[in-house]
Amino acid sequence: MSILGIDLGGTKLALALFSEDGEILHRVTAPLKGRQGSEAGSLIIDTTGAMIDYAARNGEKVLSVGISVPGISRSASGTVWAPNIKGWDDYPLLKEVTTAFPGIPVTVDSDRACYISGEVWLGNAKNCRDAVFLAVGTGIGAGILINGQILRGSHDIAGAIGWMALSGEYDENVRECGCFETYASGAGIAKQARLALEKLKPSDNSIMSGKEISEVDTREVFDAFDKGDFVAKAVIEKAIRYWGMATANIVSLFNPEKIIFGGGVFGPALRFLPLIEKEARKWAQPISITQVSLVGSALAGDAGVYGAGYLALKNIIR
Amino acid sequence: MSILGIDLGGTKLALALFSEDGEILHRVTAPLKGRQGSEAGSLIIDTTGAMIDYAARNGEKVLSVGISVPGISRSASGTVWAPNIKGWDDYPLLKEVTTAFPGIPVTVDSDRACYISGEVWLGNAKNCRDAVFLAVGTGIGAGILINGQILRGSHDIAGAIGWMALSGEYDENVRECGCFETYASGAGIAKQARLALEKLKPSDNSIMSGKEISEVDTREVFDAFDKGDFVAKAVIEKAIRYWGMATANIVSLFNPEKIIFGGGVFGPALRFLPLIEKEARKWAQPISITQVSLVGSALAGDAGVYGAGYLALKNIIR
Repeated sequence: MSILGIDLGGTKLALALFSEDGEILHRVTAPLKGRQGSEAGSLIIDTTGAMIDYAARNGEKVLSVGISVPGISRSASGTVWAPNIKGWDDYPLLKEVTTAFPGIPVTVDSDRACYISGEVWLGNAKNCRDAVFLAVGTGIGAGILINGQILRGSHDIAGAIGWMALSGEYDENVRECGCFETYASGAGIAKQARLALEKLKPSDNSIMSGKEISEVDTREVFDAFDKGDFVAKAVIEKAIRYWGMATANIVSLFNPEKIIFGGGVFGPALRFLPLIEKEARKWAQPISITQVSLVGSALAGDAGVYGAGYLALKNIIR
Repeated sequence: MSILGIDLGGTKLALALFSEDGEILHRVTAPLKGRQGSEAGSLIIDTTGAMIDYAARNGEKVLSVGISVPGISRSASGTVWAPNIKGWDDYPLLKEVTTAFPGIPVTVDSDRACYISGEVWLGNAKNCRDAVFLAVGTGIGAGILINGQILRGSHDIAGAIGWMALSGEYDENVRECGCFETYASGAGIAKQARLALEKLKPSDNSIMSGKEISEVDTREVFDAFDKGDFVAKAVIEKAIRYWGMATANIVSLFNPEKIIFGGGVFGPALRFLPLIEKEARKWAQPISITQVSLVGSALAGDAGVYGAGYLALKNIIR
């Protein structure tokens, strides 16, 4: 038997055929190429069909399909809201895929729910009942495991930690995507660096001043930080403070065993984990902070596809 | 049949005999009078015995006992950590009460878990699956209901929201009891007012300056606020901002149906609920904030004893 995990990202689709114990038997990636609405849905169905055929040719039957989506999966209706795919405000993904492959159970869940599920299955949250995946990429979200179950909330929007208020006093800059995300996401770090560069006096000299300010991206801020640039230092140090405060708040509220740092920014920011822990220790419930460990993702960019595979696996066993 | 709910506070013990549908048949309060260690345990056992006898004399059998404790109830060992009762670092309360009353099931839980349970049973969280009780008294804690279950965390310390980091930059003042609690608990509000009064120039005039600064308490800060005092205004407005930010963070993380404000401060601060909601709206995940309602406790000071009763009730039905 085999199961199929599908990770729909903002720009590409990743599919992996898993054995029951999590070995990847075959994997495929398909670029979205700007597909919108039902075209994005069709791409999922076409590639799923191809994977099922591949499995059949190799004597494997696909017993279950799990899909990770970049947004909100509404558990009651099976529809999906994905802000980066046009026409996916309330897209009936579950119904479409189920209709296309009768007899195969299909499960859909949010990417952040899948990230923590993947880590539970085959990553750094194995055997954990209470753990959090802090996903810091372009945006920030959290997959939260409580007593072995994913935290969903009353309308499936729990874990929107990018909106966490941390800065003491409100300023309009945080309105668009939330306080934590404004200062500590990948997009936020790049934007804060650009804003700082725009305000530089001609006498001040940043390594990043050499190019068009509008083209400064997250990677360049990290590179400039490594070279001791003072603008990058201020931006990254604020991000570290906010990662530490958010970690403290997760610890005080959830009393988890593990917090797993992943997403594109962790990545390069993993080296700051000791500094993040130091900051978190200043703020957090003092007993609870001694009961948690902070670690990087074991699955990196594959956490979503593994998590989708685990969704599929649980849907057979149940 | 009847059940017994017991609320152990910092200074007194409240016991209530409930019918199955939550009617209070009899209630008793006993002051702790500084009892420590096993003396506090004996008071619980003696008053419990008296309530069981009372019930028997009235033809009622007590089928189950629930106890709310002001601290941490360790679910694995049945022991209690209660910082305000000397000798209760790891007190074997469950074992003691169970031994004293063989044949009657006993359940122990933290006060914050009981507050939200009481509201679910007979208060403002009826029929809720996802709700939070924000308890603001001398300290601050949260009872958090997730999909109908109390959030406990890996070591029963979840909900320590008084430690929530909100102020943007760390200062040493928050080390002792956490950032949110330092500025927005009952004790925190009184302390911030005293600190502000100590720094007043002789030319500045606060209504609260009339008495010994060390004697200014929370109630006086609220009274001074009502009379337009500028020191009280600054302290209360900061507390409102922090209550709003904490509300936003609960909303963004948990996506609850309800947040219930209780404890001694709500109470007098309930009138600020519209301002707290206004502040929360600025920070919170914008869809999630439209899915929550903010309300006061329906049970006020009785939330603990009702919650203990509900613990007891669930322990029979199970």
